[in-house]
Amino acid sequence: MIQFQCDYNEGAHPLILQRLAETNMVQTVGYGEDDYCDEARGLIKCACEKHDIDVHFLVGGTQTNTTVIAHTLRPYQGVISAVSGHINVHETGAIEATGHKVLAVPSPDGKLTARQIEEVVVAHRNEDGPEHMVQPGMVYLSFPTEVGTIYTRNELEAISAVCRKYGLPLFVDGARLGYGLCSPECDITLPQLARLADVFYIGGTKVGALFGEAVVITNEGLKRDFRYSIKRHGGMLAKGRLLGIQFATLFTDNLYMQIAQHAIDEAMRIKAALQAKGIEFLIDSPTNQQFPIFSNVQLEELSKDFRFSFWQQVNDTHTAVRICTSWATKSENVEKLISKLKVLH
Amino acid sequence: MIQFQCDYNEGAHPLILQRLAETNMVQTVGYGEDDYCDEARGLIKCACEKHDIDVHFLVGGTQTNTTVIAHTLRPYQGVISAVSGHINVHETGAIEATGHKVLAVPSPDGKLTARQIEEVVVAHRNEDGPEHMVQPGMVYLSFPTEVGTIYTRNELEAISAVCRKYGLPLFVDGARLGYGLCSPECDITLPQLARLADVFYIGGTKVGALFGEAVVITNEGLKRDFRYSIKRHGGMLAKGRLLGIQFATLFTDNLYMQIAQHAIDEAMRIKAALQAKGIEFLIDSPTNQQFPIFSNVQLEELSKDFRFSFWQQVNDTHTAVRICTSWATKSENVEKLISKLKVLH
Amino acid sequence: MIQFQCDYNEGAHPLILQRLAETNMVQTVGYGEDDYCDEARGLIKCACEKHDIDVHFLVGGTQTNTTVIAHTLRPYQGVISAVSGHINVHETGAIEATGHKVLAVPSPDGKLTARQIEEVVVAHRNEDGPEHMVQPGMVYLSFPTEVGTIYTRNELEAISAVCRKYGLPLFVDGARLGYGLCSPECDITLPQLARLADVFYIGGTKVGALFGEAVVITNEGLKRDFRYSIKRHGGMLAKGRLLGIQFATLFTDNLYMQIAQHAIDEAMRIKAALQAKGIEFLIDSPTNQQFPIFSNVQLEELSKDFRFSFWQQVNDTHTAVRICTSWATKSENVEKLISKLKVLH
Amino acid sequence: MIQFQCDYNEGAHPLILQRLAETNMVQTVGYGEDDYCDEARGLIKCACEKHDIDVHFLVGGTQTNTTVIAHTLRPYQGVISAVSGHINVHETGAIEATGHKVLAVPSPDGKLTARQIEEVVVAHRNEDGPEHMVQPGMVYLSFPTEVGTIYTRNELEAISAVCRKYGLPLFVDGARLGYGLCSPECDITLPQLARLADVFYIGGTKVGALFGEAVVITNEGLKRDFRYSIKRHGGMLAKGRLLGIQFATLFTDNLYMQIAQHAIDEAMRIKAALQAKGIEFLIDSPTNQQFPIFSNVQLEELSKDFRFSFWQQVNDTHTAVRICTSWATKSENVEKLISKLKVLH
Repeated sequence: MIQFQCDYNEGAHPLILQRLAETNMVQTVGYGEDDYCDEARGLIKCACEKHDIDVHFLVGGTQTNTTVIAHTLRPYQGVISAVSGHINVHETGAIEATGHKVLAVPSPDGKLTARQIEEVVVAHRNEDGPEHMVQPGMVYLSFPTEVGTIYTRNELEAISAVCRKYGLPLFVDGARLGYGLCSPECDITLPQLARLADVFYIGGTKVGALFGEAVVITNEGLKRDFRYSIKRHGGMLAKGRLLGIQFATLFTDNLYMQIAQHAIDEAMRIKAALQAKGIEFLIDSPTNQQFPIFSNVQLEELSKDFRFSFWQQVNDTHTAVRICTSWATKSENVEKLISKLKVLH
Repeated sequence: MIQFQCDYNEGAHPLILQRLAETNMVQTVGYGEDDYCDEARGLIKCACEKHDIDVHFLVGGTQTNTTVIAHTLRPYQGVISAVSGHINVHETGAIEATGHKVLAVPSPDGKLTARQIEEVVVAHRNEDGPEHMVQPGMVYLSFPTEVGTIYTRNELEAISAVCRKYGLPLFVDGARLGYGLCSPECDITLPQLARLADVFYIGGTKVGALFGEAVVITNEGLKRDFRYSIKRHGGMLAKGRLLGIQFATLFTDNLYMQIAQHAIDEAMRIKAALQAKGIEFLIDSPTNQQFPIFSNVQLEELSKDFRFSFWQQVNDTHTAVRICTSWATKSENVEKLISKLKVLH
Repeated sequence: MIQFQCDYNEGAHPLILQRLAETNMVQTVGYGEDDYCDEARGLIKCACEKHDIDVHFLVGGTQTNTTVIAHTLRPYQGVISAVSGHINVHETGAIEATGHKVLAVPSPDGKLTARQIEEVVVAHRNEDGPEHMVQPGMVYLSFPTEVGTIYTRNELEAISAVCRKYGLPLFVDGARLGYGLCSPECDITLPQLARLADVFYIGGTKVGALFGEAVVITNEGLKRDFRYSIKRHGGMLAKGRLLGIQFATLFTDNLYMQIAQHAIDEAMRIKAALQAKGIEFLIDSPTNQQFPIFSNVQLEELSKDFRFSFWQQVNDTHTAVRICTSWATKSENVEKLISKLKVLH
Repeated sequence: MIQFQCDYNEGAHPLILQRLAETNMVQTVGYGEDDYCDEARGLIKCACEKHDIDVHFLVGGTQTNTTVIAHTLRPYQGVISAVSGHINVHETGAIEATGHKVLAVPSPDGKLTARQIEEVVVAHRNEDGPEHMVQPGMVYLSFPTEVGTIYTRNELEAISAVCRKYGLPLFVDGARLGYGLCSPECDITLPQLARLADVFYIGGTKVGALFGEAVVITNEGLKRDFRYSIKRHGGMLAKGRLLGIQFATLFTDNLYMQIAQHAIDEAMRIKAALQAKGIEFLIDSPTNQQFPIFSNVQLEELSKDFRFSFWQQVNDTHTAVRICTSWATKSENVEKLISKLKVLH
């Protein structure tokens, strides 16, 4: 059974395992204050072309989202997110667990718009007795989104501008950041993102690491005491070195972008094969997640050899699934899928 | 500089790295539902000689303490702990972050007594208007404690009995469990512990793993929906396989106990050398953490070659430090320390 | 300026003030354990025709909603509510402040349906990996709703049945309960409601009291330790007697229903006058809140003498407002409004 | 049975009831934005001799403490309090419910010292890895304390100075403020207090009102959005006018101080009678709470006619109780107590 259901089916890039093995018995201090973490911080600052930033390493996405949002908001504030945002649907209320409402805004393509954000803020401020409602306090968006779409540079600049106009920090969830940046449709770079977001993270878990997310704080006002927030939310890894080593490896010799590009290339081949076959898509994604709509007969046939994620029942006869590629996707497996697609009825 | 300041200075036991490398490209499902996790669960059940238990894998200690306690308590309940308990002093209020008070009880040796627990509960129930105070809802203790001491089997049985008498689940923090079980003064076994505690964890981070704590739930009433609690607290690792592989390795061929025994043997050699030198101890610890009191002159001399944790200023001329051994401690480094101690003024 | 903008413009029914004055210097114990509270509890049990219920008195609605919901849910559970539910929009995130998500369901008329509730629960249980999402844990509905509508007995029975089928406690926010029960379209009685809901409250603040909400818990499983939850949420009034005296007065000689009926009668007169004039309504409400849509010219004219609540901009030329009556509404003021409506252009 | 067990045994001062009755049918807006609240704010500003302050009205003490503390602290911060502080022992974990630890400092007389505060802060800052511990974020003290003692002006100035030195807002719980200010040993005035505290409240519940606490915010940095915090914690009274009317009455013609003085006078008479009889005290209190230690025989005799609060079992034969006076204490009842004391064995 060949698995395409997610982008965390395998372990880590071999260079990471190698580096972990090489450094295994070196003694370091704990909690992210070791030399490997420092090295990784330096490399990430270079990749962002920005040195007045703080870089912290956390283990997973939900933990990172929770920590950043709880650190940023005042108690009575909420975070604006697309309805489909990961924090709104797939984190078991982890944001609410810290006392904050997710102010969910409808979005068929998974993306917020600058206009939506402005509308939420203006509506709140115009309210008679605004203190009876949750105050919008920051904006959360995913790049790429949970349905594989990406923001253009213009869109992000407009969002960033409206956020700054109203004093809302902009937080970008980059759990799949590499897969966004390497998309053929992407017109923004990491340094540009670092200029537009107040805080964002570079996902490692889904892009070559065993685990790990690198949080980049660019907004001076959010830097203070962030380590307290990490610890309070149970995110401070005792052997912080493991995060330092992984991110140092990923940000050496452009490895992060290189392996993300591989995932995108394989995804685009699959997408082309699906299009060639006349398969429709739930949404048009330019990244490593593809959402084809198969007839149930087709799906049954494919499921003999391949595992996808069920996504949505489109109608009685058709089903949308998610097909993911990743840094680890073997080209031979993609070949097998394409061959199978060609002969599909 | 040889580091004895904590038990997480190095990476992981080589067999763990090896197993991670061997399985790296095997595709699995995520979130702890893979075969490696199942294997590890089975091995832990065998080690506990108990099969009606639930086993979950989390990444770190603070996260585990928070998740278990928030899962167990009713909103208006608190957790009884020694003042020196990790949850009371070293977790940046992570328990309070979930809405619960730590009901801290004084304890010079880091241990709670059955009598103290009973006193807290009885005092609460006898209160006029008990609802104005936090209701004791569970008991937390560390085995070994934060100052290296361990409970005897009789002590734990008495504590367990009083907990059951009053309906308080007993939660044992086993971040250093192996180092407690292998202590020459320990008269309790893992299966016995599993019979006395309602929930406990087997620490991996400090005993051979890169990271990871295995939570064992024996109390039927606490099992329901625990995975929701893990996810809500950001503790559900995407590549859960990493935890399964590590614990499966640790619980194969008795590795966990064997490497813990090594740490204890080295700690006892250091303890003996300190005693031979007439050094006093802040507390008499039979486990891998030792708390000698050095004169400041001695400490300065030792600090040229060795790093310890500062623990407490005893008086103007003397300082207590913590010396830790672990699964990774090299005997040659212990030799160097002992040699140095012998010639110390 | 005559005020119709809400149902808490005045103080309390004169009989309440009188009773407060008469009992003022009587010494009682605090926190709701006095004889007046006991008397009120007994009267409410009689009114509910149910004696195996617990009755508690709180000060305000948001506090009551928060206390009941936080008391009922497990940490990872959320509460199902209409999007327009008070807890979802007008409580500054007080529910989220206790760590729980509001699972908001669309509802143009402010009412949930049994089918919607079942769909939410079934969708959740069918989810692959349900623990990544908030678990539906209870149902919240308002009677009457925030837009004045009421549930029929059949609707409530269907909702109650689906709640019991899936083990979800049903919580009815009765901040305006009297105005619902006295509606000409209401086909349910207080005893019937007490049979269908697991917990509900009888609103005093908007129906004759200075303040106060009487929480009725009918579900045995929710009764335990509710006083702890009240205190923890800052809702335990020191001079609890004030709540006892007020509710004892309201539930003596049917005063509660009698004054609620007055509000409904006046509201129906206003509604009829609006209909006679050909004014459209945003929603057809059979209770004390009416939502007429005025042309902006009409509204400007009316605003010279009357104050309403702005509700919604319908289009460039028309605006929906809320007109409220209450126990305190003077018939002469209603006359003035009707007269003015008659001559309105 | 004459009740001396607390200072909330009766209703409200007759002038308050009278004013409530007179204004009962006046229509006002809700939520504390009415003219009566404005009037009361103005009067309190005058009484504080300070006009750049914000004044808010809440219903009860626990609610007020919770709201102020949660509004002031960053998530990872805690509040320094005496062990005996109300927030630490008698609020069912309401502070922890908002995610914050109470950093409790021992205090036999119920008072914090400037030195203790400085020690806590300095110890925290000197900690290696301070982010593993809760950061001290503000100071809470009660004036008078829970055991009736009061701070001198010098003590409060020293505390205020150390708070400002370290950037910790000072919060004074004035639930019994009047009884402190009227004590014969008090050398501080309300305007002086308003200069030293960053936020404090003037207790109404225990000093003549039916209920109500007036929060005064003097620190500019704490003023923003406080109404959001009130609402979020369920403390925004719909008929806010009730609070305005009560505080306007209390701060007209010096009523607040006048009725507090009465309580103190009666307490001092009781204290003198106890001293004359040779009764010892648990603590020497100069305010309306007295803590005599009776032999169990004496207590049994007194309990035939008088109700006190049990405070503490001193030894097998002696018990400390609390005797409270208040604005409502009748001199004839004090006479009866004194007469009884005179003939006590």
